[in-house]
This record gives sequence, C-alpha cells and structure tokens, in this order.
Amino acid sequence: MIVLFTDFGLGGPYTGQIKAVLARLAPGVEVIELFADAPAHDPKAAAYLLAAYVDEFPSGTVFLCVVDPGVGGARAPIVVCANGRWFVGPDNGLFAIVSRRADRIPRRWEITFSPPRLSATFHGRDLFAPVAARIARGEGPYGEERPAHSARYADWPDDLAEIVYVDGFGNAFTGVRATTVAPDAVIVVGDHHIHRERTFSDVQPGEAFWYENANGLIEIAVNRGRADTRLGLGLGDRVAFAEAVCDRDH
Amino acid sequence: MIVLFTDFGLGGPYTGQIKAVLARLAPGVEVIELFADAPAHDPKAAAYLLAAYVDEFPSGTVFLCVVDPGVGGARAPIVVCANGRWFVGPDNGLFAIVSRRADRIPRRWEITFSPPRLSATFHGRDLFAPVAARIARGEGPYGEERPAHSARYADWPDDLAEIVYVDGFGNAFTGVRATTVAPDAVIVVGDHHIHRERTFSDVQPGEAFWYENANGLIEIAVNRGRADTRLGLGLGDRVAFAEAVCDRDH
Amino acid sequence: MIVLFTDFGLGGPYTGQIKAVLARLAPGVEVIELFADAPAHDPKAAAYLLAAYVDEFPSGTVFLCVVDPGVGGARAPIVVCANGRWFVGPDNGLFAIVSRRADRIPRRWEITFSPPRLSATFHGRDLFAPVAARIARGEGPYGEERPAHSARYADWPDDLAEIVYVDGFGNAFTGVRATTVAPDAVIVVGDHHIHRERTFSDVQPGEAFWYENANGLIEIAVNRGRADTRLGLGLGDRVAFAEAVCDRDH
Repeated sequence: MIVLFTDFGLGGPYTGQIKAVLARLAPGVEVIELFADAPAHDPKAAAYLLAAYVDEFPSGTVFLCVVDPGVGGARAPIVVCANGRWFVGPDNGLFAIVSRRADRIPRRWEITFSPPRLSATFHGRDLFAPVAARIARGEGPYGEERPAHSARYADWPDDLAEIVYVDGFGNAFTGVRATTVAPDAVIVVGDHHIHRERTFSDVQPGEAFWYENANGLIEIAVNRGRADTRLGLGLGDRVAFAEAVCDRDH
Repeated sequence: MIVLFTDFGLGGPYTGQIKAVLARLAPGVEVIELFADAPAHDPKAAAYLLAAYVDEFPSGTVFLCVVDPGVGGARAPIVVCANGRWFVGPDNGLFAIVSRRADRIPRRWEITFSPPRLSATFHGRDLFAPVAARIARGEGPYGEERPAHSARYADWPDDLAEIVYVDGFGNAFTGVRATTVAPDAVIVVGDHHIHRERTFSDVQPGEAFWYENANGLIEIAVNRGRADTRLGLGLGDRVAFAEAVCDRDH
Repeated sequence: MIVLFTDFGLGGPYTGQIKAVLARLAPGVEVIELFADAPAHDPKAAAYLLAAYVDEFPSGTVFLCVVDPGVGGARAPIVVCANGRWFVGPDNGLFAIVSRRADRIPRRWEITFSPPRLSATFHGRDLFAPVAARIARGEGPYGEERPAHSARYADWPDDLAEIVYVDGFGNAFTGVRATTVAPDAVIVVGDHHIHRERTFSDVQPGEAFWYENANGLIEIAVNRGRADTRLGLGLGDRVAFAEAVCDRDH
C-alpha cells in the first residue's frame, strides 16, 4: 500500500499526476490519499501530524510525503525506514518525528536515482513517486545509506504544542499526544480555558472541549460547531496546558 | 461495491483512513466516494439527500454512511437492508427515508461487533468500515435484528422542502422530488419566484430557474452563475411552492 | 487508463457517480482524477489547461472531459482521437487545442449512442462515461466520423495569455507555454513586473517570480506565499510579456 501525505491542497492536478505514475510503475498496488492538506510549507508541523497516523498502517506501507518548500533547492531527497514502514520525500525534518519514535534505529538513504525527466518544482511526480513505486514493488530504495539520526532536528520537542491541523468540521488538532499530559489538563489558548471530555455528545451543542482524537492527538472541538471560528484558532497557534481548575469555559 | 456518504468535508484524513481499512478487510472491492460533504451534523437533511442517490447503484451495494453528531453517545450503530442495498451507519434517522421508500419491508440490525480498538469519535473507521467490509465480502451483518420501522421518524415528511445541499457550482438541491410537484410549480424562496426549465441553456446567462436534477430532486440554479450567492440560498433554507404565475423572476 | 478532467468542483457527488459507472462498464480500468476544478463554464481556458497535461499520459489513455455549460442544449457530444489519446466530451472547443497541437491530423466523431437514461444536465454520467468506458475496453467510439478540424476555433491563439488556473498554493497558471517566450521575458500583470526563476528557493520568502511549471506552462508564484492574493490575480486575468528590464519587482 502507498499512502499519500501532501500539502498540495484539495484541488488541482498534483495528486492525480502522482497516482498516474504509481498506476504505471506499481500496477495493482493500493494507493490511499491520507492528507492532501497537510500544513503547507511547514515540514515541522507536518512531521508531528504524520507521526500520529503511521501506526494504523501495516508494516511495509510506503508513505509518499510531499511538504517541500525547498523543492528544486539544496535539500536532499530521502528514503527512511522506521518500524518497518517506508517514507519517501524531502530531507527537511518531515520524517524527524517518525524516526525519533521508532522502536529500533531507523534507516535513511539519500536518493541517487535520476529520473529521465526531473522538473524543478514537482519532485513528487518525477522523483518520489517512482522511488515509492519501486519500494512498493519490493525492491530496495534507489539510494546511498546515511546515518539515520540527524542532529539537525534534535532541538525539536517531543510533542508540538501548537495547532498543526484544522479539519473540515473546524476541529483543531494539536501536535501533542494526549498520553503526555495529565488526564485533567486544561488547555489555555487565548482567553479560553478548555476542559477535557470523551466525545462530542458529552457537552452541550456550541460548547468547546478537548479530547484525545482517534489518532491519539489532543484535539480542540465544539459540539455541532466549529472550534476554529468559535475560538479564533488557526494553524501555528500555540497552546498551553494548565492544571485543572473548577470553573469551566462557557 | 462500497459507497461512502459522509459529512467529513473535503480535506483531512478520515476518508483515507476508512479506505485503508476497507482495502485491508475487503481487498479488491471497488470503493466509491459519493459525498464527503453531506450536510454536516444534520442526519435529517442527509437522509433525503442519500435517498435520491441509491437507485443508480446495483443491488448488493454497501453504503457506508457517516453523518453522526452523536458519535460515542447513546445512538446505536446499525445495518439496514432496503431494496437489496445495504446501509451501515448510525441509527439517527439517516436511513429513515431509504427505508420508507423501499418496495418491500426493509430489515435493520443493531451492530453487536466489538472491534479490537474503538475510538470515542471515529466509528466510521473503527466500527462501520469493518462491518461494511464484512457485508461486501458477502457475509452477514454483525448484529441483532430489530424491527425495521422505527416510529421515531414517522413525523418526517415524504419530501423535505428545504435546501439540503449546495454543489460546487452554487446550485442548491432541495429535498423534494420533482415528481411530487406540479410540472409548472413555482418555487418561492425569499423574494424570488423561480420557474422551471429543462436545462441551463434554456435560460439566459445569469438567470435563475429550477429543474429536475439528474437524481430526480428539485434543484435551483443560475445559468453560468451561482444560485447560492445570487439568491442568498444556504443549507437549511425553507422553500415553498406556488402555482405558476405569468411574470418571471428576472 | 481513464483520466477525469472536469469543472465539477471539489465536493459533491458527480465524480463519484461517474466513477461508479466506469467501475461497472470498464471494470479493472484505472481511473485517475486529474482536475475536478478546471475553469468552470469556460471551455476555452480549459482547452489550454488540458493541452498541457496530456503528454505525460500514455497512448491509449481516455480523457473524460466535462466543462460543459451548454449541457442539454445544441452542442454535440464528441469523441476526438489525437496523438493516440482519446477525448470524450462536449463539442465546445474543449478539445480544440489538443487537436491543433497533434502531430498527425486528429479524428473526431459525433456520438450517436443513446443511453437508456439521459438526464438533461448530467451527460458526464449518462453519456460520456459509458462512451469512455467503451473506448477503454478497446471498442470503437459510438459515433459518426466528422472532419476533425473545425473552423470554429481557428481564431483562438496558439497560447492563451491569461490566468487559466489557480492551484491550492495560490500559484497562478497561464495558458502560455514557457517555450514560446524569451527565456528572460518579464510578465506584466497589473502594476507588477515579474521575472523568471527556476524554482521557489531561488527567491526570498514572499517574493514573486514566474517559472516554467512541471507541465511546461508559465506559472506565477510567490515563495512560501500565495501569488493570487499577493498580486491580486484571478481566473481570466490577462497577462502581458515584456523584454527583461533591470529593476525587479520587490
């Protein structure tokens, strides 16, 4: 299975063009579009989002990941193998968190494959897709192995206390795993103090809460409403955590 | 074939996550994304929209439907079989209209399957997808049969005289089948009186009209324009019908 | 392979309905969604956009194209074969540019197939999809051959000097192939003079530039920003070209 994780946005030709390459080079392999709206131009936020989604895919899954503001520039194209899953994309930190959280030491290769046609701006189609197809066919990555752990991202935190995604309902995902905070922690964002609940129907319509989402991240939501507009939340906004207090945010 | 009908919105990981489960549990079964933007949090409007789209799919099709504001709460997960098609989703009225319009008495099961992992907020992935995959493989629903006709939705009308969907062109679908009104009925919405035409090119660019859409619903449109902005229409707006009059809405 | 090129927009049922028809009538044929957001109601702009995307698909590919404001009216449904690729859709100019750029004289058929059900407004599902499926199965088009070159579009330019698409990043595509202008040409749009660069990282964040995009079109972009909002660009805006000058647009 090949999983697409990109910041291409919802329209446009890019995902289709990549799927056409994969259909030709890895026929019969299932291709799943996971995110087409990962945080644009922000490999760091994307790294924490991606890391929350890999565990539900089986060993051997190939993640083709494109959040790549430096495309055509100096950043290298790489392949990473972490916990038996493969990641193909730019070497810009996008795979730093899946690498850090791997049980065993992950492996990393710099791609040496030179495609017959390499555009300056669409390595997803021209470089990453052919390499992902090759791995999905069971062949090794085209590349030279490098040390897996780059010191470059060592200062990135274990969890990212900011909004890394806003979904179609207006729910705001943080880059923080719920297991890393106290069960009764309160999120402080702007003037709001937001308490934890288990699910939407545990609060009144229009009320804000946070919960552990289906992928383990702390997510801020409003029952039958939009947390982004109701609370003024957007990508990159910092969140803080406090001890639980008695009065609620109504 | 498995058909997805959800209110997840256009971005985000949810559809991809469900497709990944289906690919694993029902390999080789075609999965079609019909609506990812069904009316959010509104099972009633969604029920009338869904009912207009089932007939063009063959017997045996499995509809995996998620418009589920009560996820994680008291509402039961169910399977319905109506006219040879299967529906998997929450028991919140979403299948009330397809059930009512079935030629024979539909059947209904409460799902008893307990997945190994059940998140509080994403039953689409954790519960409905595995059950839909099982049915698509030709196995029975995991569930206990219940009486098909719930009295709960008996007061819902045969057709819903409100806007249940606005498409990408700005065309506004009502929940009313065109066959249930007089052929020359006039729609009254706000200050507008809207007459029937057969297709877009029957009116001038910029002119509003209604027509029987390709799925039998009354749809309000503007030739080469957007009915939603031009007429101020939005989801949930009520529409009324009048006898045809002589002067037109220009 | 069947490639979808439509102006349906990103949501809604239309693409799914077409895919369901294709799955039934051409089982096992790969279906790729290339554009669902081609310029709405604008076959001319769409014709230049489409023409930039066909070459990367193999001979025998079937393009099912719906930019069809005249649906249900007098415009004929056609099949075109150009450079070994097939095009199915309305005869409204949408295939004029792929036809003109073909190496050999393209062929054109008027579709004579009458489907069992033909809605007035959704020929994509009812007419074009069955014909595309038939061609993808290796059967001939249902139709009567006509002269390929219509004089109707002879006055359309070789390249269209306007914005024909804005992608999810806010990058603005023109309908002009980069090979048709001087390498150091400057784009003049509104008050802006925009110079050429090779890729995003060649300019500072926030800076505008133009480049030859991965499909050969001239595209206006801003590094880590949105060209559409930053430069006030939208679909249909005219662009002009000047000789290179010394001062840059900062």
